[in-house]
Amino acid sequence: MTTPLEAIRQRIRPELERLNQHIASSLASDNELMNRVIDGYLASKGKQIRPVLVLLSARLFAGAVTERAVRAAAAVEMLHNATLIHDDVVDDSDKRRGHPTINSVWDNHIAVLMGDFFTSSALKEAISTCDLRIVSALASLGCELSVGEMDQIYNARFHQLNEESYFTVIARKTASLFVACVEMGAYAVGVSDDDPRLAALREFTRRLGLCFQIKDDIFDYFDEGRIGKPTGNDLREGKVTLPLLHALTASDHPRREEMAAIASKEDLGADEISDLIAFAKEAGGIEYAYATMNRLRDEAVDILNDAHAGAEGKALISLLDFIITRDN
Amino acid sequence: MTTPLEAIRQRIRPELERLNQHIASSLASDNELMNRVIDGYLASKGKQIRPVLVLLSARLFAGAVTERAVRAAAAVEMLHNATLIHDDVVDDSDKRRGHPTINSVWDNHIAVLMGDFFTSSALKEAISTCDLRIVSALASLGCELSVGEMDQIYNARFHQLNEESYFTVIARKTASLFVACVEMGAYAVGVSDDDPRLAALREFTRRLGLCFQIKDDIFDYFDEGRIGKPTGNDLREGKVTLPLLHALTASDHPRREEMAAIASKEDLGADEISDLIAFAKEAGGIEYAYATMNRLRDEAVDILNDAHAGAEGKALISLLDFIITRDN
Repeated sequence: MTTPLEAIRQRIRPELERLNQHIASSLASDNELMNRVIDGYLASKGKQIRPVLVLLSARLFAGAVTERAVRAAAAVEMLHNATLIHDDVVDDSDKRRGHPTINSVWDNHIAVLMGDFFTSSALKEAISTCDLRIVSALASLGCELSVGEMDQIYNARFHQLNEESYFTVIARKTASLFVACVEMGAYAVGVSDDDPRLAALREFTRRLGLCFQIKDDIFDYFDEGRIGKPTGNDLREGKVTLPLLHALTASDHPRREEMAAIASKEDLGADEISDLIAFAKEAGGIEYAYATMNRLRDEAVDILNDAHAGAEGKALISLLDFIITRDN
Repeated sequence: MTTPLEAIRQRIRPELERLNQHIASSLASDNELMNRVIDGYLASKGKQIRPVLVLLSARLFAGAVTERAVRAAAAVEMLHNATLIHDDVVDDSDKRRGHPTINSVWDNHIAVLMGDFFTSSALKEAISTCDLRIVSALASLGCELSVGEMDQIYNARFHQLNEESYFTVIARKTASLFVACVEMGAYAVGVSDDDPRLAALREFTRRLGLCFQIKDDIFDYFDEGRIGKPTGNDLREGKVTLPLLHALTASDHPRREEMAAIASKEDLGADEISDLIAFAKEAGGIEYAYATMNRLRDEAVDILNDAHAGAEGKALISLLDFIITRDN
């Protein structure tokens, strides 16, 4: 079955091919060892939702994708991969997208260096557009992503259990990247920063990014078999995501106080994690998270329909629906 | 006693103060935890040779330091610190400049994120100059530093024992940063890229950077007490630096072949490391490294004197002499 994302990718296949050529040539160097590490890494590309957003945004505004937009998309994909490579070092992960990670095949030193190299290469690619707005969007994004991750660590350490803190974190660590994608796509085809159609697209995309993270967080409540990562990873790191957050703060479940006491502990055992996950489900946390995504989805669609009719607008909405319904 | 570096720092004290204000305000965020980590880190500033070079270059060409030069200097110092923060994670170091490292006080996750945040903040600071040449120099530098470190790993893994490989590595991982500093200082006061006086300054600074790394490498052959890090660290990681490289490849010491066999092993024991260090000294490796620095120094001084007379030229030469003679 073709997913909506695959259908979108089909429509922009030539541009995606150019994108991947740009990434490969940006990352090529005269160091053989490095080229081997990178070839291995590039063998598994992932969904590339972020560069797809850059390209869709360019098409939305200009009807076509310029060379500048392809470069901006390559830059944003390399920056995103830099953060994944570093995440895998920190989490000591063996696999990503079903492939062995750089830190597991090589070592932490090489993986940290490769992450830094991806970041600098992303920047060089952005600079090759000769558009300071694109470069600037990428740099601001880099800061926002780090601060978002630090916000999440802060919330975990100091047990900040409220929706406002949760949404601040996911806006920074996830939605900001998606918003930067559509901005860069628009800049790449000469759209002005104060164009109200860009403002609308930003608002749509912010909600799409929030949905992406809420859905990602929901995966952590289910079995490994279905989604490719072990249940309860977030809780193990002290991260309380929307389903449990809702169950702990807004449900009238009889075990709410007991569970809140467990959630406030410094280190959780495997049984405690299972209990918290079961409790989040019983108290309606998963339904609440889906209802939140659906509310965001409806707002996003209204915003987009007002500003952007046509095929690219429809593609963006199908991408949003795919993000909410995807099972990996 | 005032070192030549301190004398130079005295002369540009107001500019260095502005630089440090820029760094502190660039790194400030609304995340309390992050601000605590950064305050602790900024308490130990190090020698700040790199931003000093940016400022001296600006003065050399324009007689004064512009706001743009201060921003470029702040950017380069933050990028340099990003690499140090990541190095400390990879080497699992407890101390840097006599102060506890971020990974030791906090953890690896926070340290990796903080390194990434320093990189993005460096970039934002560079962008605030609105000079794409400065931004571009910083991005290229980021790539060069990563490739240089990877070259070093490659040489260590595949036992590349020749001076050419050694100089390629130190040019990339160290000298490139120093050269970028003087370029950015020059760009910040409007010097053209093909100005022959900038070409001369680049050539001077490349040699200064090479001397900096050769001297750093020599420290590894001596006691911890004198220089603040344990002897033989480089060899433990498989890195053969100039003194031993010379002893192994160009000396006529009777134990040369025996030592070459040890140096080609995958993992070295403490006794083997001590033996190799003693051998490098006996075979004249330290003298050879000093002779190399002195040769580079003489070339550098000739190049600079031809192109840049005056007080800033003298300051640069005194900085070079300090780099060669410093004892930490």
